Amino acid sequence: MIKVVCVGKIKEKYFLEALKEYKKRISKYTSIDIEEVLDEGSSDVKVIQKKERERILNKLDKKAFIVLLDLNGREMTSEEFSKTINNTLIHNSNITFIIGGSYGVDEEIKNIADLTISFSKMTFPHQLFRIILLEQIYRAYKIMNNESYHK
Amino acid sequence: MIKVVCVGKIKEKYFLEALKEYKKRISKYTSIDIEEVLDEGSSDVKVIQKKERERILNKLDKKAFIVLLDLNGREMTSEEFSKTINNTLIHNSNITFIIGGSYGVDEEIKNIADLTISFSKMTFPHQLFRIILLEQIYRAYKIMNNESYHK
Repeated sequence: MIKVVCVGKIKEKYFLEALKEYKKRISKYTSIDIEEVLDEGSSDVKVIQKKERERILNKLDKKAFIVLLDLNGREMTSEEFSKTINNTLIHNSNITFIIGGSYGVDEEIKNIADLTISFSKMTFPHQLFRIILLEQIYRAYKIMNNESYHK
Repeated sequence: MIKVVCVGKIKEKYFLEALKEYKKRISKYTSIDIEEVLDEGSSDVKVIQKKERERILNKLDKKAFIVLLDLNGREMTSEEFSKTINNTLIHNSNITFIIGGSYGVDEEIKNIADLTISFSKMTFPHQLFRIILLEQIYRAYKIMNNESYHK
């Protein structure tokens, strides 16, 4: 079971439609649950991170394998990402991905993550990043199942 | 002036809408032209690359600064990407980005590129990649102009 915990709402209709499509495609392979938590509007980064941390923690299943998406994480190819998911599923059928808010996540979230992955050195808007992650999860299942998939 | 030469059509309505939105946003800073060339349906990779190469070459302005997006290119942060565009614009007001097809581009295209950039070690579908590129171009202009932009 895949869960994606992410901070902030998506308002753009085209991004919502893209997410719906990838969610549908992934659901052919595994159950997928997207948990959106509110982003915090304060002007103090520490306050934002603390409030968002509590909201993220509330959504986490303690037994899940936690993957944090972070600029400072390990970069990997789509094949390596697929293998990582595959190897994890052997030991734990629950994988939870965390996408932080605009100001990143605080140390506590970084510490509880079992794995931290970076998709790029570049910064993307969280709405677009959510689509990028779902597409890579979908691609990972396609690769695991030896199914062809256009680039 | 920014030109994006890309192989393959986008059919998904949500991706078309996202592209339209980013094109509109970029056009506040510079003229932006997206040139879509047909992808080739052959089963022979060499044939595909050769046919797609000709179609790409047809769209290139010889005086433009050519940036190829390729898995084997140089990775950079959004700030470095912004600086790269900024520095290029000082010498050449025409920048053309090339996004290859599913099988990548052939050596000739690689050789004429003035710069080859990789956005990620991961493979993305070309439709989604086009949005990722436009978003980074938009972000690059925001950074150049010292304008704030949510992540």
